[in-house]
Amino acid sequence: MEILRTIYAPDLEDIAIGGAILGTGGGGDPYVGKLMAQEAIKKHGPVRLVDVSEMADDALIVPVCMMGAPTVMTEKLPQGGELMTAFRSLERLLGRRIDGVLCGEAGGVNSTTPFVVAAASGLPLIDGDGMGRAYPELQMVTFTMHGVTATPMVLCDDKGNSLVLDTVSNAWTERLARAATVEMGGSALLAFYSMSGAVAKQAVVRGTLSLCAQLGRTLREARAGHGDPVEAVAELLDAKVIFHGRVGDIERRTVGGFARGKALFEGAEEWKGHSFGLQFQNEFLMAERDGKILVTTPDLITCLDAESGNPVTADSLRYGLRLKVLAFASNPQWRTPAGLALIGPRYFGYDVDYAPFVG
Amino acid sequence: MEILRTIYAPDLEDIAIGGAILGTGGGGDPYVGKLMAQEAIKKHGPVRLVDVSEMADDALIVPVCMMGAPTVMTEKLPQGGELMTAFRSLERLLGRRIDGVLCGEAGGVNSTTPFVVAAASGLPLIDGDGMGRAYPELQMVTFTMHGVTATPMVLCDDKGNSLVLDTVSNAWTERLARAATVEMGGSALLAFYSMSGAVAKQAVVRGTLSLCAQLGRTLREARAGHGDPVEAVAELLDAKVIFHGRVGDIERRTVGGFARGKALFEGAEEWKGHSFGLQFQNEFLMAERDGKILVTTPDLITCLDAESGNPVTADSLRYGLRLKVLAFASNPQWRTPAGLALIGPRYFGYDVDYAPFVG
Repeated sequence: MEILRTIYAPDLEDIAIGGAILGTGGGGDPYVGKLMAQEAIKKHGPVRLVDVSEMADDALIVPVCMMGAPTVMTEKLPQGGELMTAFRSLERLLGRRIDGVLCGEAGGVNSTTPFVVAAASGLPLIDGDGMGRAYPELQMVTFTMHGVTATPMVLCDDKGNSLVLDTVSNAWTERLARAATVEMGGSALLAFYSMSGAVAKQAVVRGTLSLCAQLGRTLREARAGHGDPVEAVAELLDAKVIFHGRVGDIERRTVGGFARGKALFEGAEEWKGHSFGLQFQNEFLMAERDGKILVTTPDLITCLDAESGNPVTADSLRYGLRLKVLAFASNPQWRTPAGLALIGPRYFGYDVDYAPFVG
Repeated sequence: MEILRTIYAPDLEDIAIGGAILGTGGGGDPYVGKLMAQEAIKKHGPVRLVDVSEMADDALIVPVCMMGAPTVMTEKLPQGGELMTAFRSLERLLGRRIDGVLCGEAGGVNSTTPFVVAAASGLPLIDGDGMGRAYPELQMVTFTMHGVTATPMVLCDDKGNSLVLDTVSNAWTERLARAATVEMGGSALLAFYSMSGAVAKQAVVRGTLSLCAQLGRTLREARAGHGDPVEAVAELLDAKVIFHGRVGDIERRTVGGFARGKALFEGAEEWKGHSFGLQFQNEFLMAERDGKILVTTPDLITCLDAESGNPVTADSLRYGLRLKVLAFASNPQWRTPAGLALIGPRYFGYDVDYAPFVG
């Protein structure tokens, strides 16, 4: 499948759906970000996607994203202006022109938000991100492992307020930005983690945005009659279907701003009689089958509607939905001790060691 | 009584006590700020107190203060370094040298914190503040009424984190700074409300710091045998003793970060048989005697120990304390419609109109 190099507004449909698949249950609803990005491309023209290797070592690269609950923005849809405000403010603060835009996470929302800035600025968008998936906290990016500091960071809201953060660690950036975002009404726009091209070549998870586009297209084509949607997605991701069943009991609680919980499934067809449980904290983080832990973070667990193959977020899990659950290996950077310290199962409070999912 | 023009470390004892009297039950314990200021003066030399009229119209004047709960800082006493960090960061941001330091509020803590910066910078400290008393929120300063914006504002913590805020209103500054302060552990140091000398001449409540010094000295001298402490303070403030009695029932609840509540008093001596109630939200905001409202914010209500004359904060009110309650007129700026919109009884949720206390 060819790699898209120029992204037009309609391409965002596929990218947002692909982002939601890599979002592993979190990363937000693809609707808001997609509309923002499509509006920006219609207004400013298409976005040029480049590989990080095409950036000069001394290039200045800046990721942008939306933080918080994107649902609160659907009523009063931002036009992307706040993202550009954050981006340009950080550029002024850094005192030199930014050369490229980067994606922070591959979720339903944040796989699309960088297109807003790339379109409006005319800058190239690097085909990659800082996770290869979605995670709930700002410090949970491969950039952190490469010594990139999240600050100076600019955080803007839709009212015209802005903050510049300068913190002693990326974990502190998360804490302070989270508190501000909650106060701003639950959603904010960020520019942060500025880095050189040389560092980006080491740190970026490559190819994420074209993978999102391919995932969306694969799903769309499979549904149009070219095959089984879930199988097609699994093949592209080199993923394994680890369960097929209906959602039964769901336990949810909100702890420290996270939607935590556990969903139990009843097996269908080939998995009839088997039990399956999924732990989530925004994202799906651990899967158990017949009482045995099968997959944990950082490896990816994603739920697709068994028929349509549409990704299902942890928020929208509900009794009776028939789903197929896919699991696949995370980017190798996450499987290192440094990666596991940031996003391993113990960081999220699960008393288990990580064992790589081998499919 | 002569006005102090040069402030040495021992003078801070009087100023902190005077600040606690004007703090009207809030404004924090005078201990932390006083120690910080005394350390700074011992290290850098005395502070020069000037009247705002001595500043040039085009002078750049910057208030500094501590936000949040000063008690959390007593374990790990700040050396004033964070205040200087905030002050110098704002100076860099404004792109020109600051010419004078200003006090934000006259409370137990914040009547002393500006001395830290004045001592360390060698700059004059203006004898005045933005309230003539204490209030709980950042926008509650006379500066707001003169169109001075709180931002750009720098907020620092004791860990090395800092934030620059740029907001659409001083009320938004309060909201975002409050959220950050809570996340930082409950206490932060600020530089904000930068203004010209010309504006300061209009906006500043004049003479507050020398009044604090006089109050502390008056109390000290009265206790040393020159008279009744409470009467001496009342005379200096042109205040009236509106009640004398023992604290009975106290109702407290924490609402939105404020210590709200009501204290009931049983009359003693000349007030035997009379009832008295005091409403507080950090500060004492409304006093009722025999069921009739006698004083409300912005006029000042302060509680002094009936014997020693020592100021008693709302936090330290407890059953059986014998107190005398003073009331006196606020600065005329607060008694205007614009002032009452910011800090009148209705802003605090009391369903009464302001009626000036006439003594």
